[in-house]
Amino acid sequence: MRHFKVHGNLLSPATQRVFACLHEKNLDYQFINIDFSTSQHKTPPFLAFNPFGQVPAFEDGDLKLFESRAITMHIEYAYAESGTGPLVSKEGKSNKGVEGVWIEVEKHQFEPIILKLDWEVVMKPVFGMEADAAVVEENERKLAAVLDVYEARLKESKYLGGESFTLADLHHLPNLHNMLGTPMKKHFESRPHVKAWCDEILGRPAWKKVVEMQEPEWKRLAAEMEKH
Amino acid sequence: MRHFKVHGNLLSPATQRVFACLHEKNLDYQFINIDFSTSQHKTPPFLAFNPFGQVPAFEDGDLKLFESRAITMHIEYAYAESGTGPLVSKEGKSNKGVEGVWIEVEKHQFEPIILKLDWEVVMKPVFGMEADAAVVEENERKLAAVLDVYEARLKESKYLGGESFTLADLHHLPNLHNMLGTPMKKHFESRPHVKAWCDEILGRPAWKKVVEMQEPEWKRLAAEMEKH
Repeated sequence: MRHFKVHGNLLSPATQRVFACLHEKNLDYQFINIDFSTSQHKTPPFLAFNPFGQVPAFEDGDLKLFESRAITMHIEYAYAESGTGPLVSKEGKSNKGVEGVWIEVEKHQFEPIILKLDWEVVMKPVFGMEADAAVVEENERKLAAVLDVYEARLKESKYLGGESFTLADLHHLPNLHNMLGTPMKKHFESRPHVKAWCDEILGRPAWKKVVEMQEPEWKRLAAEMEKH
Repeated sequence: MRHFKVHGNLLSPATQRVFACLHEKNLDYQFINIDFSTSQHKTPPFLAFNPFGQVPAFEDGDLKLFESRAITMHIEYAYAESGTGPLVSKEGKSNKGVEGVWIEVEKHQFEPIILKLDWEVVMKPVFGMEADAAVVEENERKLAAVLDVYEARLKESKYLGGESFTLADLHHLPNLHNMLGTPMKKHFESRPHVKAWCDEILGRPAWKKVVEMQEPEWKRLAAEMEKH
């Protein structure tokens, strides 16, 4: 077996995206924690992995990669048959294109909104800061519009890429999980096909393992904040 | 031959990205102009192609796609052997991962800066507006930092993904072309490996055809602005 290493942070959605993929493929890996509190991701040893100073970075033997979605695509490509098997549409060639569309949609339409909401309604409370109501409202409006498109899509097929679970779904997991633990969940739960999709993909055993991994870290962070 | 249709705009970098890929593959296509001046991209017929109302949209027979990079990936995947052949690294499996990293870098690190600069130094002058010096300065600083990373990468290999031209390079073409026609070109030309890479990829016959296609449209736009 090749030796896999993930350099990242347990609470980073991008790092969790890579964990989710490795667990789907049932591939063992070593986790190397990158300490944000000392800005370790901006130090030369980490910059040698990712010159842009962002987690995660990934090692597959001698191959060094960064950017979470490039890492998941590499894992899918190089280890297609491992674990739960190929995370690709079963409808054949043309659906690969459709899967690709939704991989782009997650990145360009979904995540930019979530990153803003995540900071306001997930991270700020942890740090004892107050959310900016105007920013939340603006992004809730954008999120609702995007989820209307998802609802229409998921009425047509069980998953975003077609009738099977693909990277297009997997890439959403960390952000979906975070949002469903906040008041934002109403936007997901009020749309029946979006809700069914969330329940289905967040219930996958591989993702549940990633949730278990992050729980002690949330508790540690909360305890640390308590002290201040 | 399948029938390809590109719905887009001659001056849209994302549309040009798809043209570049189709010309590399020597695939004939029909171009359907989407008129931004009447917000045609926000009307129901176009929204049926892309619910997010952005160009380009693409038809490959019955298959309908949107998001420029999903379209190029589909074309590469489905028509690998057409035209100039596979646009993939020739170093084999592991370099596919490296190519993937740079496809993500173009999207997350390069383009967001360029879109801001493009508006300030390319489009605003066309519309007779003045560039915001503070926005330009901030993004020039960011661009320089990103291009330092590109320079280091291109010192190691001729192209971003390895020793051959791949989609990781191709995706940059429209934005590179635009920037090199502005004072921003100094940032590209002062870095020898970045400069050599720009010269090489912008000189490809497929890209030259895309440049020829857009020239009358720039002239038409300039003449129209003259009238106002």
